[in-house]
Amino acid sequence: MSLSKSPDFIVHSADPLNGEPPLETLRENFITPRELFYVRNHGPIPDIDPQAFRLVVNGMVERELELSLDTLLNDFPKRTVMATLQCAGNRRDGLIAHAPIPGEVAWEAGAIGNAFWSGVPLKEILNVAGARLGAQYAAFMGADEVIRHDENVGFGGSIPLEKALSSEVLLAYEMDGKPLEPVHGFPLRVIAPGYIGARSVKWLAQITVQAFSSKNYFQAHAYQLFSPQTTAETADWNAGLQLGELGVNCVITSPREGAQVLGEVQVEGYAISGGGRKIARVDVSSDNGATWATANVTRGDQLWAWTFWQTRLHLESGETEIIARAFDTASNTQPEDVRHIWNFKGYMNNAWHRARVKVA
Amino acid sequence: MSLSKSPDFIVHSADPLNGEPPLETLRENFITPRELFYVRNHGPIPDIDPQAFRLVVNGMVERELELSLDTLLNDFPKRTVMATLQCAGNRRDGLIAHAPIPGEVAWEAGAIGNAFWSGVPLKEILNVAGARLGAQYAAFMGADEVIRHDENVGFGGSIPLEKALSSEVLLAYEMDGKPLEPVHGFPLRVIAPGYIGARSVKWLAQITVQAFSSKNYFQAHAYQLFSPQTTAETADWNAGLQLGELGVNCVITSPREGAQVLGEVQVEGYAISGGGRKIARVDVSSDNGATWATANVTRGDQLWAWTFWQTRLHLESGETEIIARAFDTASNTQPEDVRHIWNFKGYMNNAWHRARVKVA
Repeated sequence: MSLSKSPDFIVHSADPLNGEPPLETLRENFITPRELFYVRNHGPIPDIDPQAFRLVVNGMVERELELSLDTLLNDFPKRTVMATLQCAGNRRDGLIAHAPIPGEVAWEAGAIGNAFWSGVPLKEILNVAGARLGAQYAAFMGADEVIRHDENVGFGGSIPLEKALSSEVLLAYEMDGKPLEPVHGFPLRVIAPGYIGARSVKWLAQITVQAFSSKNYFQAHAYQLFSPQTTAETADWNAGLQLGELGVNCVITSPREGAQVLGEVQVEGYAISGGGRKIARVDVSSDNGATWATANVTRGDQLWAWTFWQTRLHLESGETEIIARAFDTASNTQPEDVRHIWNFKGYMNNAWHRARVKVA
Repeated sequence: MSLSKSPDFIVHSADPLNGEPPLETLRENFITPRELFYVRNHGPIPDIDPQAFRLVVNGMVERELELSLDTLLNDFPKRTVMATLQCAGNRRDGLIAHAPIPGEVAWEAGAIGNAFWSGVPLKEILNVAGARLGAQYAAFMGADEVIRHDENVGFGGSIPLEKALSSEVLLAYEMDGKPLEPVHGFPLRVIAPGYIGARSVKWLAQITVQAFSSKNYFQAHAYQLFSPQTTAETADWNAGLQLGELGVNCVITSPREGAQVLGEVQVEGYAISGGGRKIARVDVSSDNGATWATANVTRGDQLWAWTFWQTRLHLESGETEIIARAFDTASNTQPEDVRHIWNFKGYMNNAWHRARVKVA
């Protein structure tokens, strides 16, 4: 299978394929070009015959469904949503800099991308199936084989039924107006805007309506947030925070860590929050937070998409650390120090983003 | 008008009446006794004749309404919601300790309370009125007179229409099964769970459905969050964050700052988030965040209510600072240092909560 990615694409692992774009190219387009869109896989990319494909809908429903791709494309309404997907592991490199996180992909800050997704609103499918009383979650299973402890556990996840019935959650068959590429979930994937990328299950094969969240490895075990002192040995896997809605985050895309810059420097980046909360303000500091300059938001009007921001700083010559942090519309902001949110699985690093630069 | 509050109630100002309970008593009951429930007013408590009372619903509606209290009580469904209200100024004392905030109430951490509220779901009223195309906000006006710059600006605020149509937003006429007291909004108030208390407008007189957020002083001017370097003189009042959904917060209610404690100490507190996000974890540290102990949640199962937590710490003798911070289900957590969220109006202090104690 050929990879339609940019030559600059940073491939963290080839099998399963995991990669992200260089950060400086990511910020060039509000809609991320597909050759720059990050890829996060847990198994090989399945080769699915679109003619034979059937989506199964079962569980606590009035009517079980088996839907062909033709049916999904022709018998249901089509909706397009601009949505930014962000991997729960985005910015893991910053956590690793504090303490090792073995066995996990060392994502930089490019495990995020924004696209127009088109497909059937999930609620249209669920309305036909008819959720039964007591149903509380929509659980998804992809067609990819994922081996854990010598067993194919597959890739699954779930979202609350209330979210599944919202107008923004899609079963997408197009990305930016073209059929999904295999690497992004052809022929069908979930798009759950405002949630960690893992819940937007690719190569979607089955939706199960049920009273409890998914028991799949990637919902009930992985993608849980634990406290800094918890280890793989001490973790209570029934007590972690099963990641869902994204928190508030902010990244400096330019200048990059270690860059040589002039005294007047353009600082740019992205910010994002989850659950439909918009970015309310981005602050930038070059004196470790003693004073903050409010950045200009250049694009930030879409409910489910990231925000682009920029500002100009006047820096004294020498070494300076630039810091950025955001507030969302629920007045949530970011923690200062990565030490206090470090977790052994390396999720959800939203500490202040920092770039040390040398000023000429 | 007699005040049915506890003798221990801390009265910050008598006219307008503003007060809160002592923190150690607040944590004794998951449902806050009415004699301990905080009061936040901007003007005198209006004396409303329930017979003459009419609620006006106007603006972008198909049908303007004038509803008597009898109609609201008898012709509409009644719903009860447990909801915690929190003033946007809760914990302002912690901000003032960093830098003065003149002209604002110096709230401690007791400007919060939890109650059962009963009344008509707002959506039932709006369904009868019929919101017209383009309507985006429900704006509320109370009957209280509030003087600003020699003018009666009244007290108003708004919430997005989507929130107004949610099942949890009430026009409440009962608190804990009894008619509202005048001090809490008799005969009718808004309850907007998950939002700052100011949006739960008391002595509700009018609801206006409109395309824009309220232009009232308390939505368009006050209750905005600005950056630390902004002052009253430099503020762009069109650019602040108009506070709405609450962020994540956490408070140690016992032991109190300055307390003498034994080496084995019970630490207790509350935590809360907004927008229906639950508290996922509370961490407690006695070594300035080098290590964290996860507290036990004793009550935290209600969508719109606070969470109670407790843990036991073993402390060395001498002076120790106990710190608490929470994570919500969107993995948002609290900023470490009050300096970085200080704002000249003194809102939304959710920095790590700290209590210095002397260990015997």
